Amino acid sequence: MAENGRQAPKLASFHAPLSSETARFLVDSVDAFLFDCDGVIWKGDKLIDGVPEALQTLRSLGKKLVFVTNNSRRSRGKYAKKFLSLGLDVSEDEIFSSSFAAAMFLKLNNFPQDKKVYVIGEEGIVEEMELAGFTCLGGPEDRDKSVQLKSNSMVEHDKSVGAVVVGLDLHVNYYKFHYATLCIRENPGCLFIATNRDALGHITDTQECPGAGCMVAAVCATTEKEPVVVGKPSPFMMDFLVKRFQINTSRMCMVGDRLDTDILFGQNTGCKTLLVLSGVTSLSTLEDPSNNIHPDYYTSNLFSIVELLNK
Amino acid sequence: MAENGRQAPKLASFHAPLSSETARFLVDSVDAFLFDCDGVIWKGDKLIDGVPEALQTLRSLGKKLVFVTNNSRRSRGKYAKKFLSLGLDVSEDEIFSSSFAAAMFLKLNNFPQDKKVYVIGEEGIVEEMELAGFTCLGGPEDRDKSVQLKSNSMVEHDKSVGAVVVGLDLHVNYYKFHYATLCIRENPGCLFIATNRDALGHITDTQECPGAGCMVAAVCATTEKEPVVVGKPSPFMMDFLVKRFQINTSRMCMVGDRLDTDILFGQNTGCKTLLVLSGVTSLSTLEDPSNNIHPDYYTSNLFSIVELLNK
Repeated sequence: MAENGRQAPKLASFHAPLSSETARFLVDSVDAFLFDCDGVIWKGDKLIDGVPEALQTLRSLGKKLVFVTNNSRRSRGKYAKKFLSLGLDVSEDEIFSSSFAAAMFLKLNNFPQDKKVYVIGEEGIVEEMELAGFTCLGGPEDRDKSVQLKSNSMVEHDKSVGAVVVGLDLHVNYYKFHYATLCIRENPGCLFIATNRDALGHITDTQECPGAGCMVAAVCATTEKEPVVVGKPSPFMMDFLVKRFQINTSRMCMVGDRLDTDILFGQNTGCKTLLVLSGVTSLSTLEDPSNNIHPDYYTSNLFSIVELLNK
Repeated sequence: MAENGRQAPKLASFHAPLSSETARFLVDSVDAFLFDCDGVIWKGDKLIDGVPEALQTLRSLGKKLVFVTNNSRRSRGKYAKKFLSLGLDVSEDEIFSSSFAAAMFLKLNNFPQDKKVYVIGEEGIVEEMELAGFTCLGGPEDRDKSVQLKSNSMVEHDKSVGAVVVGLDLHVNYYKFHYATLCIRENPGCLFIATNRDALGHITDTQECPGAGCMVAAVCATTEKEPVVVGKPSPFMMDFLVKRFQINTSRMCMVGDRLDTDILFGQNTGCKTLLVLSGVTSLSTLEDPSNNIHPDYYTSNLFSIVELLNK
């Protein structure tokens, strides 16, 4: 099978371990690498071994690098600082977080500036909303609130809330679920936006913890509505990437550690896909008969690309 | 149509407003009335008008009264006190709460006494579990806990937890979701029990708030598992009622304000069903073409039974 007129090694129709030959082919056939962060670049706050060398190698080959994360806890600015603190030189423009995607979704849909956004989530969402010119309620501000049980007491919600954005929230509480439910159920036309629906994720390097999917499912249950999802695997973020970098998705490779978000996102948008086993997916999960999401290639971690290219 | 040899008025094949004639027929044809509490007996902590008279009338006609509530916040003992505080003389034996049902489910399934139960929920669940001889973790004890974000920090969970019970929890937090998820995902054979899946309920008399369905959905999302439901509309509680009172379900009438729990529970177990409009269901919801759960009868509130019988 040939691509761009050059002879290619056997291209995987089903996941294949990355080899020296396919690594070279992959690098030659794409112009941009899209990376998930948690489980690919770092675990919690710990850099994964060999990542700086891998990114440096790909940059030196002239590849565009883009970081696409479902984690909504930080804004793009804060992510750039996290990269820097780990010794990685990545600019804000190279980062696409689901917090940013939520703000862009509202902007693209001409969300009125006089409407407010209620947030179940952390600073990242609030910061991106404010950068986009929107006014937020909830989020970190409501972390210590509770519902009063006295007779006649009720939570008065703001009728000008026109969107509820739900993302990962380590300080989620009953009050926030109640407030979000009131807005979605009672404010006509109120949007319900999920940054993503990941079941689990790495908050620290040692253990998987509930992801945004936990909070999103809770609000789905109380509102009996389904959200618009802006993070992976929804193709929403790809629209920006394509416009920003003017690269066709067939010339991109999505690298991630999750089948149901990263690899599905890559496949949904026409990218090549590479699964790394340094995060939540094990080889046995990949090869389990119940799995029906198959990347083009898989490899142990990002650094193995460098090793394979140098062989 | 005749029942028990006596001539009956037209029996509803589709919901019919309760009339003098059908009220008399209903009272004559059943031996026990099963009542939901929230929206039928009270709203939050406020008694619904005319309830004492209605219960008194049915008792004076020799009817057995049973109170079947999905609300797991209280134990049966605490519910008896609540009835008393509202001026209603109801004994513990007449009360079946979903907190009690959860404990009975474990007992019937020979849950080992050396295994522990992790609770997302309030005192009612913990009390019923302890009355049944089980040891609990979580619940009110974990209300102020949070997940630490330091590198290398992790939540150590108890490997002897053999069941997670999830009910309504006004002090739910991320730590509880995380702990419950760890138990269900990592302890082999760990049961996942939901007291109920109500989307909303009355915590106070003024406003509907998220129900246990909110917390249950969150744990379903993180564990990618479905729970055993012991509350309405699951028929689990009916087994006790039938054994305790030795009354055939065809001689029972389930009275409730919710179509998807109370009325469905009655129908699933072969009871007659009466919807009261004093709670969460409006006449327009009942008659909406999208509704496919139809009680035998409906009426405005419990007191209207008295009025119709006296006509």
